[in-house]
Amino acid sequence: MITLSLVGIGSGNPDHLTLQAIKTLEGADLILLPRKGDEKTELADLRRDIVAGVLKTAPSVVEFDYPVRDAKTPKYLDGVNTWHDALASIWGGLIAEHAKPNANVALMVWGDPSLYDSTLRIADRLIAQGLDIKVEVVPGITSLQMLTAAHGIPLNDLGAPVVITTGRQLRENGWPDGTNAVAVMLDGECSFKHIDQEGIDIWWGGYVGMPQQILKAGPLAKVGADIIRTRAEARELNGWIMDIYLLRKRA
Amino acid sequence: MITLSLVGIGSGNPDHLTLQAIKTLEGADLILLPRKGDEKTELADLRRDIVAGVLKTAPSVVEFDYPVRDAKTPKYLDGVNTWHDALASIWGGLIAEHAKPNANVALMVWGDPSLYDSTLRIADRLIAQGLDIKVEVVPGITSLQMLTAAHGIPLNDLGAPVVITTGRQLRENGWPDGTNAVAVMLDGECSFKHIDQEGIDIWWGGYVGMPQQILKAGPLAKVGADIIRTRAEARELNGWIMDIYLLRKRA
Ligand SMILES: C[S@@+](CC[C@H](N)C(=O)[O-])C[C@H]1O[C@@H](n2cnc3c(N)ncnc32)[C@H](O)[C@@H]1O
Ligand SMILES: C[S@@+](CC[C@H](N)C(=O)[O-])C[C@H]1O[C@@H](n2cnc3c(N)ncnc32)[C@H](O)[C@@H]1O
Repeated sequence: MITLSLVGIGSGNPDHLTLQAIKTLEGADLILLPRKGDEKTELADLRRDIVAGVLKTAPSVVEFDYPVRDAKTPKYLDGVNTWHDALASIWGGLIAEHAKPNANVALMVWGDPSLYDSTLRIADRLIAQGLDIKVEVVPGITSLQMLTAAHGIPLNDLGAPVVITTGRQLRENGWPDGTNAVAVMLDGECSFKHIDQEGIDIWWGGYVGMPQQILKAGPLAKVGADIIRTRAEARELNGWIMDIYLLRKRA
Repeated sequence: MITLSLVGIGSGNPDHLTLQAIKTLEGADLILLPRKGDEKTELADLRRDIVAGVLKTAPSVVEFDYPVRDAKTPKYLDGVNTWHDALASIWGGLIAEHAKPNANVALMVWGDPSLYDSTLRIADRLIAQGLDIKVEVVPGITSLQMLTAAHGIPLNDLGAPVVITTGRQLRENGWPDGTNAVAVMLDGECSFKHIDQEGIDIWWGGYVGMPQQILKAGPLAKVGADIIRTRAEARELNGWIMDIYLLRKRA
């Protein structure tokens, strides 16, 4: 049986790695390393740096290209599902070609594999296809933890709930009921524009944990426009951006 | 100026430490180490093990006792606030007594300092008292990440939100609106008893990431009673328990 370890690597800095992640990667016979397309070579580079600079062993590494997601598929989820199928075929093919029986295969996952990430769903497809695979998960520091650490703030108020959601959800469904704190990820378009700005504070971060890290915080009504501008400029300058924010209603 | 680093140490296993956490602790001049009262000596022991077994330097360590929280204070939040004040006084006193000017002082925080943890609020009190302190946060693996990793499950459905909340909130306010996934922490009494069990799956974990780890999963209506029994027995056996769970509504 093949062991496939999905190893969370944190959000942009090799120092985010846990000892458990390092040990798992060092013990791997094969590491599958995704190249994510031009704009995100920095993210593939980070993975290469981890293999070359942090590990004390030299597991064999096979790089592979991500299939292009068809943004034209009418339903968003259909497009994503087809894309996951394509990725599962690629992984399956690489494992069949490069992994010995009983090999430890590892994949480095951005942040933590549990949070807005597809690798667990893709691994499930391999199992459904009948591959004899055991999946192991090694947690990693999420971008949300990097955000709160960088700002030095708690995620939740004392004993209070917090909602983690996406830009699309915030746009389409507005402020979630029953919470004063909302963390937003996967937001390509500063969706905080679409909610009532009054009485809300924002803690925003681009490239959190990375050398280019940018932080902004304040009353949304006051700093929102600055964040939109800063984000656009940084995206232009770097060719890509990943950003995340926490919104909190003042008591 | 004193630098006070709040270092997330993960949820029960020295291998959860990140390289950043190790480097910060190794660079500390002084580590404040809480003893949490009898039942939780294991948690203080883990901190001692980290200092003795993981760090390559030997920072000086000062242990201190937690003040007892007055459970009789009429309002829950008042009791907590008084307790935070008491802790801030203790930290301030220890820093004044043991830290040289410009010292790096570190505190090991269970899990991640952003999630249902009071150290950031206590540190704010020191700043409010006029102490010349800079607070730094080093993220750590949360118990919620250990839970999802141990079960090998994602936290959220594809593009969907997730609510993180407490047992008390679930009991008093029921299932939160607008989400199919709810993670519950700080629940001394299996509060999932109080919601409608139909159509809900649970992934439960006690002592996640620790040698005594116990996992249970399945339809809530089927496994709920087993979890209540297992939790009571484990608590009896170990003298204490920490548990956490994810609830998900089936589509
Ligand atoms: C596909 S999700 C992956 C999240 C990842 N699994 C995690 O644990 O953080 C990508 C989203 O995570 C957030 N993100 C990831 N890395 C980030 C970083 N370094 N800075 C800011 N946001 C980041 C952004 O919101 C981005 O749209
Ligand atoms: C005061 S909160 C601290 C949470 C911590 N900051 C974190 O990041 O996980 C304590 C709660 O965390 C959860 N918890 C912490 N460690 C745990 C463990 N090893 N196993 C299960 N639950 C744990 C339980 O729900 C417990 O009531």
